[in-house]
Amino acid sequence: MKRVAVINGPNLNLLGTREPDKYGDRTLDEINWLVSREAESLEISCEFFQSNSEGELVTAVQLASDSDGIIINAGAYTHYSIAIRDAIAAIAAPAVEVHISNVHAREDFRRVSVIAPVCVGVIAGFGSNSYILALHALAGLDLPV
Amino acid sequence: MKRVAVINGPNLNLLGTREPDKYGDRTLDEINWLVSREAESLEISCEFFQSNSEGELVTAVQLASDSDGIIINAGAYTHYSIAIRDAIAAIAAPAVEVHISNVHAREDFRRVSVIAPVCVGVIAGFGSNSYILALHALAGLDLPV
Amino acid sequence: MKRVAVINGPNLNLLGTREPDKYGDRTLDEINWLVSREAESLEISCEFFQSNSEGELVTAVQLASDSDGIIINAGAYTHYSIAIRDAIAAIAAPAVEVHISNVHAREDFRRVSVIAPVCVGVIAGFGSNSYILALHALAGLDLPV
Amino acid sequence: MKRVAVINGPNLNLLGTREPDKYGDRTLDEINWLVSREAESLEISCEFFQSNSEGELVTAVQLASDSDGIIINAGAYTHYSIAIRDAIAAIAAPAVEVHISNVHAREDFRRVSVIAPVCVGVIAGFGSNSYILALHALAGLDLPV
Amino acid sequence: MKRVAVINGPNLNLLGTREPDKYGDRTLDEINWLVSREAESLEISCEFFQSNSEGELVTAVQLASDSDGIIINAGAYTHYSIAIRDAIAAIAAPAVEVHISNVHAREDFRRVSVIAPVCVGVIAGFGSNSYILALHALAGLDLPV
Amino acid sequence: MKRVAVINGPNLNLLGTREPDKYGDRTLDEINWLVSREAESLEISCEFFQSNSEGELVTAVQLASDSDGIIINAGAYTHYSIAIRDAIAAIAAPAVEVHISNVHAREDFRRVSVIAPVCVGVIAGFGSNSYILALHALAGLDLPV
Amino acid sequence: MKRVAVINGPNLNLLGTREPDKYGDRTLDEINWLVSREAESLEISCEFFQSNSEGELVTAVQLASDSDGIIINAGAYTHYSIAIRDAIAAIAAPAVEVHISNVHAREDFRRVSVIAPVCVGVIAGFGSNSYILALHALAGLDLPV
Amino acid sequence: MKRVAVINGPNLNLLGTREPDKYGDRTLDEINWLVSREAESLEISCEFFQSNSEGELVTAVQLASDSDGIIINAGAYTHYSIAIRDAIAAIAAPAVEVHISNVHAREDFRRVSVIAPVCVGVIAGFGSNSYILALHALAGLDLPV
Amino acid sequence: MKRVAVINGPNLNLLGTREPDKYGDRTLDEINWLVSREAESLEISCEFFQSNSEGELVTAVQLASDSDGIIINAGAYTHYSIAIRDAIAAIAAPAVEVHISNVHAREDFRRVSVIAPVCVGVIAGFGSNSYILALHALAGLDLPV
Amino acid sequence: MKRVAVINGPNLNLLGTREPDKYGDRTLDEINWLVSREAESLEISCEFFQSNSEGELVTAVQLASDSDGIIINAGAYTHYSIAIRDAIAAIAAPAVEVHISNVHAREDFRRVSVIAPVCVGVIAGFGSNSYILALHALAGLDLPV
Amino acid sequence: MKRVAVINGPNLNLLGTREPDKYGDRTLDEINWLVSREAESLEISCEFFQSNSEGELVTAVQLASDSDGIIINAGAYTHYSIAIRDAIAAIAAPAVEVHISNVHAREDFRRVSVIAPVCVGVIAGFGSNSYILALHALAGLDLPV
Amino acid sequence: MKRVAVINGPNLNLLGTREPDKYGDRTLDEINWLVSREAESLEISCEFFQSNSEGELVTAVQLASDSDGIIINAGAYTHYSIAIRDAIAAIAAPAVEVHISNVHAREDFRRVSVIAPVCVGVIAGFGSNSYILALHALAGLDLPV
Repeated sequence: MKRVAVINGPNLNLLGTREPDKYGDRTLDEINWLVSREAESLEISCEFFQSNSEGELVTAVQLASDSDGIIINAGAYTHYSIAIRDAIAAIAAPAVEVHISNVHAREDFRRVSVIAPVCVGVIAGFGSNSYILALHALAGLDLPV
Repeated sequence: MKRVAVINGPNLNLLGTREPDKYGDRTLDEINWLVSREAESLEISCEFFQSNSEGELVTAVQLASDSDGIIINAGAYTHYSIAIRDAIAAIAAPAVEVHISNVHAREDFRRVSVIAPVCVGVIAGFGSNSYILALHALAGLDLPV
Repeated sequence: MKRVAVINGPNLNLLGTREPDKYGDRTLDEINWLVSREAESLEISCEFFQSNSEGELVTAVQLASDSDGIIINAGAYTHYSIAIRDAIAAIAAPAVEVHISNVHAREDFRRVSVIAPVCVGVIAGFGSNSYILALHALAGLDLPV
Repeated sequence: MKRVAVINGPNLNLLGTREPDKYGDRTLDEINWLVSREAESLEISCEFFQSNSEGELVTAVQLASDSDGIIINAGAYTHYSIAIRDAIAAIAAPAVEVHISNVHAREDFRRVSVIAPVCVGVIAGFGSNSYILALHALAGLDLPV
Repeated sequence: MKRVAVINGPNLNLLGTREPDKYGDRTLDEINWLVSREAESLEISCEFFQSNSEGELVTAVQLASDSDGIIINAGAYTHYSIAIRDAIAAIAAPAVEVHISNVHAREDFRRVSVIAPVCVGVIAGFGSNSYILALHALAGLDLPV
Repeated sequence: MKRVAVINGPNLNLLGTREPDKYGDRTLDEINWLVSREAESLEISCEFFQSNSEGELVTAVQLASDSDGIIINAGAYTHYSIAIRDAIAAIAAPAVEVHISNVHAREDFRRVSVIAPVCVGVIAGFGSNSYILALHALAGLDLPV
Repeated sequence: MKRVAVINGPNLNLLGTREPDKYGDRTLDEINWLVSREAESLEISCEFFQSNSEGELVTAVQLASDSDGIIINAGAYTHYSIAIRDAIAAIAAPAVEVHISNVHAREDFRRVSVIAPVCVGVIAGFGSNSYILALHALAGLDLPV
Repeated sequence: MKRVAVINGPNLNLLGTREPDKYGDRTLDEINWLVSREAESLEISCEFFQSNSEGELVTAVQLASDSDGIIINAGAYTHYSIAIRDAIAAIAAPAVEVHISNVHAREDFRRVSVIAPVCVGVIAGFGSNSYILALHALAGLDLPV
Repeated sequence: MKRVAVINGPNLNLLGTREPDKYGDRTLDEINWLVSREAESLEISCEFFQSNSEGELVTAVQLASDSDGIIINAGAYTHYSIAIRDAIAAIAAPAVEVHISNVHAREDFRRVSVIAPVCVGVIAGFGSNSYILALHALAGLDLPV
Repeated sequence: MKRVAVINGPNLNLLGTREPDKYGDRTLDEINWLVSREAESLEISCEFFQSNSEGELVTAVQLASDSDGIIINAGAYTHYSIAIRDAIAAIAAPAVEVHISNVHAREDFRRVSVIAPVCVGVIAGFGSNSYILALHALAGLDLPV
Repeated sequence: MKRVAVINGPNLNLLGTREPDKYGDRTLDEINWLVSREAESLEISCEFFQSNSEGELVTAVQLASDSDGIIINAGAYTHYSIAIRDAIAAIAAPAVEVHISNVHAREDFRRVSVIAPVCVGVIAGFGSNSYILALHALAGLDLPV
Repeated sequence: MKRVAVINGPNLNLLGTREPDKYGDRTLDEINWLVSREAESLEISCEFFQSNSEGELVTAVQLASDSDGIIINAGAYTHYSIAIRDAIAAIAAPAVEVHISNVHAREDFRRVSVIAPVCVGVIAGFGSNSYILALHALAGLDLPV
């Protein structure tokens, strides 16, 4: 069974209450439950982690180093955390960057991801489905492309 | 049955022969066949279009205006075709931007998409699976996010 | 009788249906008919051309080389088509750049026109009247300024 | 009868003597007389104002607040006077920015107008006719576009 | 009794009528009266000045040179008037820059103040209270910080 | 009684010993005591928090979500913490950004605040009085402005 | 016998009539005839293609994929067509970028070529001889350098 | 006898009291008297003008249009007044830009002069002697260079 | 005996396993042991600290305030942590910035250190020897330079 | 017989030993001999000069002022030596800029040539053949283009 | 008797023959003779030096370290020679930067002087008189300014 | 015995007399003597070279091509000499960039080194000890890192 770490960054603990028209009204727990259920059907087991702290996210990435993949929504850190970038680059597990909203349709500074260049790919804009799609993406990484 | 237009831009007709280590060794026809098969299982019917011409891609987007969704890999035009951007913005059908390779891990000029801000979302880096994931993303757009 | 070419670029064929609050609800045909009627009163005969293709617009400008003037709304190409700029610079006929909306009040990238420096002048923001005003502007080019 | 304020900025009092090949050899009085005459035929009454002072131009715009439209050639202030911009934005009367020469074909710094985003539209490059065209533009603002 | 000069720049004479949702519906006279009243309770006497002219504002700052403090809302000039900056730097009286709206939440060009570096401090975003707070700030400048 | 959270960021725990000529010689405890006393007179109860950690500051802002206001001196994070910005934007309580020194008169990178656009306003340059003024600003937010 | 594709972009069909002092007074046909004749002496057979359309140029490059070399004057597209760049990069045939005029001595935007990095080399400034020199350059590519 | 206009901009009326270590302790009247005396020995008659107002400086330059030369210290306006630049460019009299301090050794924004390109030359850094040297420069303009 | 704090930032806990060709195959513990041994010979006692958290590194710098020197490899934070910069600036102990790899030979964003301006000096590129050299540098700070 | 100066800049004396895969394994003497032999067949006599010193290269260009042409590979100075640019601009002899490698395919800073704008043309990327092609280019300058 | 070093940089040895309409038709020797004669009348003795080599100019500045002043026209090096800048900053003698032409009215890159910030002042645009004026400027440095 | 070349650039011959508070009061000869003595203890023999000329420094680097290492303080050339960079890149000997002062704490333009990317490492800020540390760095290059 594959193991995937689902890592969420700052303010994603507010999901459900924070600007629901932009981020949907599902809480992070509900999303995690959905991801978890979908993962099962893909024979993937998920571990979930959320933190507002850049350093703890770095550590979380390091600890996922022997997993089969990482799904990371680094929130605001996406745009400036070279520390998280370095952590992802330092480990072997493939990482997929996800975003709930379409970050390209928002403020200019949200259009730059310092993390994306060291990830396998990026999925953004599909609400909580972004996580589900990322699961499928990781599941499909072994297939010929 | 939903109808989805799958639109591919310049040089994607070379898939399979062009730098296979970067773009995989599947031809565009093979990818379209895979997409088509997956679409069926999602009760989606696909129409496929490829052109090297910016103007024809603009027209293709316009013609897909009454479809249920567009999957567009605008290739190099992604980075400067405001004309394609305007076409997507002008129609009601939701568009998903896809890329075979992780554009963020390549030249700097490939990190900017002028099209992404008017799309629903972006999926990049998963080889031909990017198209499959986009299908699922479109299929899931009606669900609560 | 003076001859004037009225050249419209990408997505202007959608006029009337595309964001009517921004672009008005007249179709391009209706606008052309209005321009045509006004032209008659100024003893000008108009030829109309629209294309989504940058290359065809270049060719249209070249073909208008012996007309008495060009009214060009290059749409999105206004902002990056050095090819259209070069075509206008290469011919003798004076060109007037027009826009239906006030491009300066929209996204930043719409504030730069690579075409304007080789035109006689620019008229923007007056809906379909921008074309009518351009006709008058061309009619008045022979007068002392 | 509509009332329109025609406001001219710095150095436009020199028209006729200042670089006639670039600005024509009509004086500002002559242009104003032409504008005035055309205005009559459109049932518009014009008031004319010229000043070299940014502050007086701000005040002139404020005073035109209850007119039916403003034609403003802010001269050099076009490129940096946020104060004039704020004045135009603060009042209800629609403003049209005009220029005698094609500012886009001159120095780079003349290509940026801080005023244009708060105007209805822009007309540039047609000598003294730019003012006449602006009159017609204002006259046509009530019509469907 | 301390003497403080309250200097307002371009378009602030329109307060109350200009975009009341952004600037409140108090006129400048009403604000000045409130400031005046609060000043009394702080044993401060205020002199008020408003001008749309950059030059007159420079002169007003110079004339306030022997006051005990300046409260200046330079309006649009905040963003480019090095002349006003130089005036403030040239005199001994401490100046406080105020703004009615939160300039940081508006257009990008409003985020830069060329005046702030030569002021004691900045207060922005609290409506007419910004002036009141500035009074208190000046009153408190002698206290240990 | 209103409740206000006073949140201080990195290195502000050093106040009193750190460059006293720039930051004054009051310790953070002394400032908090002064703020507390002034708050009482305004019928405001304050809670104080300081951390060097960006993540803990994000959490502190989230926890203050049901307070009546936040006074935040994010220290160095002011200039790059989009995470703190997102936290402030995600909650309903109004935030006031404060700084002890006039950040505009220091290094260029201190002139940009990524937090200010989502705050109600900014107060900078008045030493420990900046906090006192912020209290009054929050107290006055309900009044007509 | 080697085969070389000579590909010309937008407005080069106007050669001979377009600004002869800048581009010479030879037509494209005349230049092609000269190139053809020189090619014979080098035992090279040439195929000639010109288009104003970016998309057709992309296709032309693709079709030249099995030639022994490409001489390309992409005209205005030189400066922004990443699509043509990608086409050149995707094929094995070596390409030489040529220009009739010295593009470095003209407008700033003509100094950047997005195509040059994927070409073997660049020859610019020698009128129609630029094409002749490119022929010789391609002929010499096999020699030790 | 030659006639020269000596035009001083904002805050130069403060000379003598304003930062004497930077600007010297001579008042503007004293400098004008020195210039006047030196002018006499060169058979030049001087007229002196100072204003804090950009508009009045524009007018002053216009009025000096038939003089034999202008010595202008535009103060802060040096760095952004395109209006003054246009006035100088519009008249025939040669202008010399002067500065008391070495503007290149101060803040970065003082290193750019928008006026210098339309002046004959620039003299900066020699205190009140900058004016005297400018007189000599104007006197020598007729000589072979 | 001098006391020196050796502070390591994010991902340096991975040394030995992380890209050994770039960072060598010594673990951080091994490096610390080597530094410790060399320190003894210089009569320096070292304290070692590593954290992935920016805030904890700020605190670690503060706690080293009374040491005789700091050797800091801030890892990714080097490039954006103004918080760490402020901590170093706030204390008296001299700091030496070290890097294992030559950061100037890597990505562009690694060439900027926001910390270096407040350090005594920088040593980069010598593997674990960078730390040893920094020890010697600190030891030699008292000598005439 | 025409006379051509072949001028080589810094580090080109290392040709043959320096990164042969990038620059080929011919020494500068060998290249000069090839150029010399080809020149003879074109009835051109060549003089060769190499220096690592910018000043000596300036002088060499000056001394070639009465030659019939200059072939210059300014090496690294290509990218910043305005002094060499000025020397080329100051003399009448036409200059051709050559490079052995395709400078556009290397570091970004090698894509800008400050010399190219004052040369007749540029030839880059053809190894030692670049010099041979430049000879032919100079030989052909007299022909109609 | 004061001693002044007159130092001229690259290509100034061509004066008289190089673009006489821009630089006048006096040779450097003639200018030096004029300067010399004027110097005598000011009781100044001059030493003259010209070199095309940046390094020799650095040395020349160093050797003038005990003179009473330096007049330096660094030619093209003005715009990038930090080495010459450092030499001027390292010595006590005051330096005056001169230019024959008005560098501000030429290419953009000529508007930046890296040397000016460490000079006493700048004189540009007065042909060979620039040197004469610089002599007077140096002579007047002792006077009250 | 290892051989190391110690190469110093422009103005370093002034050490001891030039701004001693910034650069210390040791002359270059004294530093060289100290380096020499330390080198002996490391069984390294040093050769010393200083020049103000960029070209001679290029040559010096080339001549050190068969040494065991280079210690280079390129002075001002550090920031723009691509020629010296190319020389270092062209040879096999490892180079260490040194600076006496902490260049990162000075003017912005001193923070960029065009040489650092081709060196092994950088040591800056430790006065003459920077050279000593560089010796040790070179001595330690063979050790495991």
